[in-house]
Amino acid sequence: MTTKELIAGIAQETGMRKADVARMLNATVEVTTHHLLEGHSVQIQNFGMLEVKTKNERAYVHPRTGVRSVVPEKRQISFKQNPALKEALNRK
Amino acid sequence: MTTKELIAGIAQETGMRKADVARMLNATVEVTTHHLLEGHSVQIQNFGMLEVKTKNERAYVHPRTGVRSVVPEKRQISFKQNPALKEALNRK
Repeated sequence: MTTKELIAGIAQETGMRKADVARMLNATVEVTTHHLLEGHSVQIQNFGMLEVKTKNERAYVHPRTGVRSVVPEKRQISFKQNPALKEALNRK
Repeated sequence: MTTKELIAGIAQETGMRKADVARMLNATVEVTTHHLLEGHSVQIQNFGMLEVKTKNERAYVHPRTGVRSVVPEKRQISFKQNPALKEALNRK
């Protein structure tokens, strides 16, 4: 599902204009990104939580050449689904 | 950041009423969840992609009792950040 399709779906669900939905979705991404970049997690009710995780630097050996190097520490965003969503995903 | 704070932030950013923002955020969660449950991924521009991943069933041995069991296959949602966000997170 593309962002365009998502916007159309939200507009249909709420009766709002697509332009307003797009503006709000952009603001959601902006506000969320801002907080994540500051290292804070963002909770989304009935859905889950986006959080920044730091992966430690680690040694890496190239499988073919045997050359050793260090993969630097990096931050990445991970999504933690809430329990209801987890259950819905795995209901038979 | 709680959902309430997120809504306040979006309202401030867009000049929209909090009630409208809350309604739209709920619809976003609903539409997104619906698509994820059907096994489709959802793309969010300038941010990333939410997708359903299936983890295969696997054998599990209890470390203390040695009892073997099978962890069943399960589906979970994973977030794939877009390259710009990844870079912003790791900019020094």
